[in-house]
Amino acid sequence: MRALISVSDKTGVVEFAKGLRTLGWEVIATGGTMKLLADSGVEVINISDVTGFPEICDGRVKTLHPNVHGGLLARRDDPEHLKALKDNHIEFIDMVCVNLYPFRETISKPGVKMEDAIENIDIGGPSMLRSAAKNWADVTVVCDPADYDAILDEIRAGGNTEKATRLKLSAKAYTHTAEYDAMIAAYMRAQAGLNEKLFLEFDLVQSLRYGENPHQSAKFYREGKEVPYSLAFARQLNGKELSYNNIQDANAALCIVREFDKPFCVGLKHMNPCGAATGKDVVEAWTKAYEADKVSIFGGIVATNCTVTREAAELMKPIFLEIIMAPKFDEGALEVLSAKKNLRLLEVSMDKGDVDPKQYVSVNGGLLVQDLDVATKAVTADMCVTKAKPAAEQMEDLNFGWHIVKHVKSNAIVAVKDGRTLGVGAGQMNRIGSAEIALKQAHAAGVTEGLVLASDGFFPFDDCVTLAAEYGVTAIVQPGGSVRDEDSIRKADEKGIAMVFTGERHFKH
Amino acid sequence: MRALISVSDKTGVVEFAKGLRTLGWEVIATGGTMKLLADSGVEVINISDVTGFPEICDGRVKTLHPNVHGGLLARRDDPEHLKALKDNHIEFIDMVCVNLYPFRETISKPGVKMEDAIENIDIGGPSMLRSAAKNWADVTVVCDPADYDAILDEIRAGGNTEKATRLKLSAKAYTHTAEYDAMIAAYMRAQAGLNEKLFLEFDLVQSLRYGENPHQSAKFYREGKEVPYSLAFARQLNGKELSYNNIQDANAALCIVREFDKPFCVGLKHMNPCGAATGKDVVEAWTKAYEADKVSIFGGIVATNCTVTREAAELMKPIFLEIIMAPKFDEGALEVLSAKKNLRLLEVSMDKGDVDPKQYVSVNGGLLVQDLDVATKAVTADMCVTKAKPAAEQMEDLNFGWHIVKHVKSNAIVAVKDGRTLGVGAGQMNRIGSAEIALKQAHAAGVTEGLVLASDGFFPFDDCVTLAAEYGVTAIVQPGGSVRDEDSIRKADEKGIAMVFTGERHFKH
Repeated sequence: MRALISVSDKTGVVEFAKGLRTLGWEVIATGGTMKLLADSGVEVINISDVTGFPEICDGRVKTLHPNVHGGLLARRDDPEHLKALKDNHIEFIDMVCVNLYPFRETISKPGVKMEDAIENIDIGGPSMLRSAAKNWADVTVVCDPADYDAILDEIRAGGNTEKATRLKLSAKAYTHTAEYDAMIAAYMRAQAGLNEKLFLEFDLVQSLRYGENPHQSAKFYREGKEVPYSLAFARQLNGKELSYNNIQDANAALCIVREFDKPFCVGLKHMNPCGAATGKDVVEAWTKAYEADKVSIFGGIVATNCTVTREAAELMKPIFLEIIMAPKFDEGALEVLSAKKNLRLLEVSMDKGDVDPKQYVSVNGGLLVQDLDVATKAVTADMCVTKAKPAAEQMEDLNFGWHIVKHVKSNAIVAVKDGRTLGVGAGQMNRIGSAEIALKQAHAAGVTEGLVLASDGFFPFDDCVTLAAEYGVTAIVQPGGSVRDEDSIRKADEKGIAMVFTGERHFKH
Repeated sequence: MRALISVSDKTGVVEFAKGLRTLGWEVIATGGTMKLLADSGVEVINISDVTGFPEICDGRVKTLHPNVHGGLLARRDDPEHLKALKDNHIEFIDMVCVNLYPFRETISKPGVKMEDAIENIDIGGPSMLRSAAKNWADVTVVCDPADYDAILDEIRAGGNTEKATRLKLSAKAYTHTAEYDAMIAAYMRAQAGLNEKLFLEFDLVQSLRYGENPHQSAKFYREGKEVPYSLAFARQLNGKELSYNNIQDANAALCIVREFDKPFCVGLKHMNPCGAATGKDVVEAWTKAYEADKVSIFGGIVATNCTVTREAAELMKPIFLEIIMAPKFDEGALEVLSAKKNLRLLEVSMDKGDVDPKQYVSVNGGLLVQDLDVATKAVTADMCVTKAKPAAEQMEDLNFGWHIVKHVKSNAIVAVKDGRTLGVGAGQMNRIGSAEIALKQAHAAGVTEGLVLASDGFFPFDDCVTLAAEYGVTAIVQPGGSVRDEDSIRKADEKGIAMVFTGERHFKH
């Protein structure tokens, strides 16, 4: 048996080649790989001895030869193929071990010239991978060093790799060449001034029972690389499988949790927070969030940035919840909550390390791609535009409301007091409608003074300020930027309300 | 100069080869292409005469030879490359014309065997495309028959293609091989039982000024194939560039329009319809939709399935609108509306031909893919669950409301009369909240009897029916399916309300 090895990533390749040799395989290699193997004491055949052809054109044409590709592509069960090989003095090659220099790394080097990028486009490698992968029935194709050990084990056990393994490796190889050419295509299109193409690739997490509604089929995919605050990489400890709507809602909850470093808890229903609060610990945060709206949380989702303790779990248990998410559940909490068989418990990584996350939303025949709205300006005293200035505790509530309201569907208004939402006005077609909902809810909860109001967009008229005053609001945070900002400021001054302009809008649709 | 031609799609290839011959180029060809060209009287060189090697293994190894790839890859400005070619008796190949048999067609044939699919994986073709594309500085790579004429024109004019053209063709070739291997990878992964991968590809329509908010950067892409009801393929006749939020909102409006065959008009704001109506013509539909809510439409989007006439345009003109969409604007309408420089007018194809549209929504680190919620059950008399039965005009309104409410953000309740929305309750965290908004709005519009109510989800309690009765609702459409359906039916019977259960939920988040 013969293996042809030509790798860019040399991880583990010496051991792999030695392993093959020990099992009686011959090893053919090219250029740098050959040198490394020879220097490491592996007996190795030069590719030129196989092709009977020199390495010409700086190695551009090393392996593009019938002695290689005939040896890879010939069907071992076809007498005519076998005869052709014999007539042309071509021997079988039973394994190709190739990986490609990551083109992305080449082009992301500072100041890389197009000439260098192009020189780094591998021609022989993809050809060998594709030939070997096509003939997977007889040929093993290896493009991932992580597979070396298992392959050696199989050969050790049975003389060759198993057929099912070869099929998997074939699929992997075509995936590798597809990804490789997508990178090159994107780069070359940019160089050529051709219309930009977006290539996206996702891995299936699960087929879902159905989509947003039972008559819609749906699947859940994830990105290749793990990111924080992601359900796609969460660990489910208890409960039923997540549904499509669970995933959307739970993701919205995680986006809210990402805003806070202090102990925080949010209850969420239909993509909107129905109660959110900070507290000195998870028990206080949960209690405040729950008491903010004891009705809407029914069948809702809870997320916290704290370890869920037994004490917190005992408080949550009586409520009908679909999902609880946290960075960790302690043993006591798990014991308490896993008594509810259907309740989904998810441990989600909450390290704030994600860089440059993108958001994708399709429209008919198209795709919108944008930076995810992650960063939020802190509300500071110098943003105040009114005569009245926010007191320290108001500043805290303004900051709290500002970080919540960006996650409420527009037009969004949130009423806050003491680090807790008391009213959430979401999704109304006009801003005053959302303000009414939020403020009436706060009144219904018995809070009629010292309220703080946060708005995701500017006030087009002064009517929101007037309404706010009637409901006992003493401070407002909003982006500002309306042509009628002066009207709102005048009204706030008239009512003794402090108002800050952040200069940053947070629509969410 | 020499061109190597080996095409699966033979469109125009005879004329192209003849054109090259006329311009003094030699033409090398393989297999079927060679036969076609020779039969058509084109003087053609057999690839075997170039390689000095027979076509072995059923043609699997035709072109994988240094005489081909050396001829393609050698740098014409590198003396050592030139010497190597000379020493090895290799001549330049200055053009590769190759296209690949669409793998998707192979695997979508009924009953295709894996063996046949794999036999159809082209090895030599992609290798030649990739070699030629790498050496675009000197070699022309053609993978699209649509480019033949322009290439001949350039050679006719200047003796060879232009360098900028070769760069573009190179980018196109890598795009072709990337797409090809993505198809193969997806197929082979399925065969191997490997984790499914989703490969998506989109073309840039435009970089947007910003995303949902000014601090988010954003781009708009489209699918490769034109689909109806799509902004990505719309024709803009007037006004400013579309913004990110415009695109999302306008798409929501188009999804609503798709529901109706009769003359129909919808006004939309923040992803929710604020007024929608059918009418005998566009003028009536617009007037009814506008009068449904004259406040919220301010700065909104209008879509209709009718040609916009001068008369309709005169009625729309006084209102501040961001966008008007229609299958067509007649000349008079264009004259009237284009006086408003910023008003975006878009002609959108509204042929109901789209098959199986998918919807993509990202979450942190993942992507949800589902069938778009296109189909809507017609509301029929046999769906009635109450003693009272809907009258004919109520049936029409139930149907109308049912087709609208699925496009309102959940929990969604719509109040309807005479083919027009009178109240839209959107995005509330509980259903009764949405019902209150819709019904109060209808009352505010002075309509207190003969109302019809539509709900996107079932009633969890009988409170919505009770409220509906208070507001003069006489018929209700909802999916049904609550464990407490009987409570709602009993209440409806008590109040003399007709109620139908469609058995189909239409959540939209």
